[in-house]
Amino acid sequence: MPKLSSRGNLMPASPIRKLVPYAEAAKKKGKKVYHLNIGQPDIRTPETALYAIKNYSENVIEYSHSAGNESYRRGLAEYYQDLGIQVDHTQIMITTGGSEAILFAFLATMNPGDEVIVPEPYYTNYSGFAMEAGVNVVPITSSIETGFALPDITEFEKVITERTKAIIICNPNNPTGYLYSEEELLKLRDLVLKHDLYIFADEVYREFVYDGLKHVSVLQLEGLEKHAILFDSVSKRYSMCGVRTGALVTRNKEVYLTALKYGQARLSPPSIGQVAGEAALGTPKSYFAEVYQEYINRRDFVIDALNKIEGVYAPKPKGAFYAVIKLPVESAEEFCQWLLEDFSYEGETVMLAPASGFYATEGLGRDEARIAYVLNIGDLKKAVKCLEEALKVYPGRKKN
Amino acid sequence: MPKLSSRGNLMPASPIRKLVPYAEAAKKKGKKVYHLNIGQPDIRTPETALYAIKNYSENVIEYSHSAGNESYRRGLAEYYQDLGIQVDHTQIMITTGGSEAILFAFLATMNPGDEVIVPEPYYTNYSGFAMEAGVNVVPITSSIETGFALPDITEFEKVITERTKAIIICNPNNPTGYLYSEEELLKLRDLVLKHDLYIFADEVYREFVYDGLKHVSVLQLEGLEKHAILFDSVSKRYSMCGVRTGALVTRNKEVYLTALKYGQARLSPPSIGQVAGEAALGTPKSYFAEVYQEYINRRDFVIDALNKIEGVYAPKPKGAFYAVIKLPVESAEEFCQWLLEDFSYEGETVMLAPASGFYATEGLGRDEARIAYVLNIGDLKKAVKCLEEALKVYPGRKKN
Repeated sequence: MPKLSSRGNLMPASPIRKLVPYAEAAKKKGKKVYHLNIGQPDIRTPETALYAIKNYSENVIEYSHSAGNESYRRGLAEYYQDLGIQVDHTQIMITTGGSEAILFAFLATMNPGDEVIVPEPYYTNYSGFAMEAGVNVVPITSSIETGFALPDITEFEKVITERTKAIIICNPNNPTGYLYSEEELLKLRDLVLKHDLYIFADEVYREFVYDGLKHVSVLQLEGLEKHAILFDSVSKRYSMCGVRTGALVTRNKEVYLTALKYGQARLSPPSIGQVAGEAALGTPKSYFAEVYQEYINRRDFVIDALNKIEGVYAPKPKGAFYAVIKLPVESAEEFCQWLLEDFSYEGETVMLAPASGFYATEGLGRDEARIAYVLNIGDLKKAVKCLEEALKVYPGRKKN
Repeated sequence: MPKLSSRGNLMPASPIRKLVPYAEAAKKKGKKVYHLNIGQPDIRTPETALYAIKNYSENVIEYSHSAGNESYRRGLAEYYQDLGIQVDHTQIMITTGGSEAILFAFLATMNPGDEVIVPEPYYTNYSGFAMEAGVNVVPITSSIETGFALPDITEFEKVITERTKAIIICNPNNPTGYLYSEEELLKLRDLVLKHDLYIFADEVYREFVYDGLKHVSVLQLEGLEKHAILFDSVSKRYSMCGVRTGALVTRNKEVYLTALKYGQARLSPPSIGQVAGEAALGTPKSYFAEVYQEYINRRDFVIDALNKIEGVYAPKPKGAFYAVIKLPVESAEEFCQWLLEDFSYEGETVMLAPASGFYATEGLGRDEARIAYVLNIGDLKKAVKCLEEALKVYPGRKKN
């Protein structure tokens, strides 16, 4: 039998995936499982997007332009301009989800063996795309003690080598919910310019920023015209993860044209997803106001409730709809499995994502878990109650 | 300014892309251009698929399973079984177009520097995906004189090295329209088993097979359970290229699970495309009968008409909706550009794809072009007439 590739063998399966069979078994036994483990929001997709799909009127579902429909790109350019991000449609390439934008950016700017620096904990799939591109991820550790603020710039300086080509940030952050300040971003800008690196910014949670804070895009920082590449997606903004519509945005023409060659190889991004994305640009402000208030309520409730549980620490996230929390256990991975396999409270349990999977450094985040507050408050209450009761009886609980 | 990756610089832009600006300029000047250069069919998408999109009833467009919706995979398994291809839904992974299936197969089975053998001329984007995966394409030349039949197996043997991991065939073939016979496929099977290679079969044109011939799938050949990987797509079968819904099908569990890791990194294939794909499984036989007859009529007309033009040779394709034809010119690339830039007949001209872009061997196919007979017969007539008139006056015409 022919062999698999060694890179295929090395490709990580995320810790959430390891838990899936336990969740399925729990459900088979009749347990109700509250999923705090995934970023699939329960929020309704905007009516305007659903309406556009239902009124799709073409007779042939054709390929679109490899960079996406021009009308959609022009609409998106207006959306960015309204946010104070000055780009035009020739600087926007529509991708199959934000995922593809990440892969294309790696392929266009880095060679196998090159290095990309990422503050950890970070969105696990960056590692997956890096492996596909043969690129090495070099982590810089941020800490729950500072609420996952940007690590000191000297920490970046320490790991920069001649193979370093880029830095990735996710802002607001998945998994931590941290929002980088303008001051932090300016420090990153200076670093990037000093070493002539690319800066990749995953800003798909841009709309989810709380407490009156302001989101600053990497494309709003002066001097990064050639250096900044933005990853975007409609998945979270409009709660339509399934349409697989994202974007790569850059003012660097050479990067754009090179990314487009990868886009041409796969012919076109999904046509119906673009129809939905273009229509969603017309989503009324009231939709966001409602969604926004809902997430604030959820965050305020869940963070407060978690911090009331003895031994649990949850820094208050400033954006997105995630938080990385500290648990009074040795191994969150074992605890999460135990929650599904051996525990229930009134026939219910909760599923969390062990945070170790979001760290590249072996051994970090072992007592942390990521929660996504994508359930309604009623369910969140029950989920937190399960966690509280579980920690009372968990045999692996840390001794004080 | 930071550098592009050298692989990004090397990534080929296809010869068709080079012609696009000339086509756009021609249209701006008011010329009508008949596009025989692309495989975007004009055939109507089945009503059942369009109906399913228009009646999409979810309120949240969620991620699907990373391998695709189980109901769709079960439906697809039945479709294959009806064709005599015995697979079940656990052997089918839904991908973002056939394109993604190709990339995942490369990543799962080959390491950078490994080699894949492909009979040329071949679908250019195989090279693009190979470059993304760092894999080298090794061409074996098939010839217009034999109608692009499978090259002799000794030709394959000559180029097999210890880095050779797979052979790709496209059957029926894009760009040549050739259909491999069972005898040819059995020879390939023996070769694959002898050297313990994978065989990748792109069978997206399966439904387009003419003259009473029978399509044999690589998954119908005995002994290839561990070796065969099928690429499929709904794009051409149901004329819905824009939904980006394909599949990777294999009985090799290890390959499947490894490809799925790449699938998990990009979360899910497009949800609406899967809805369309699943609904399209119920397309009535009458749709195919009509489409089939239409393509036969087009093929018969266009091949006959082309062969009547002095100096043109067009072998009759047995499948798909392409043909590679020989032109009485030194450089089809220059001729195709001239057609757009300098020629018109009654205000019209025709766009072809120079075949050199489908060969990996430098210098081959220079006097060949690919045509796609995806236009109605009225338009095909005018397109062929343009070609005929053009060859009468083309200054670069070969002297006899």
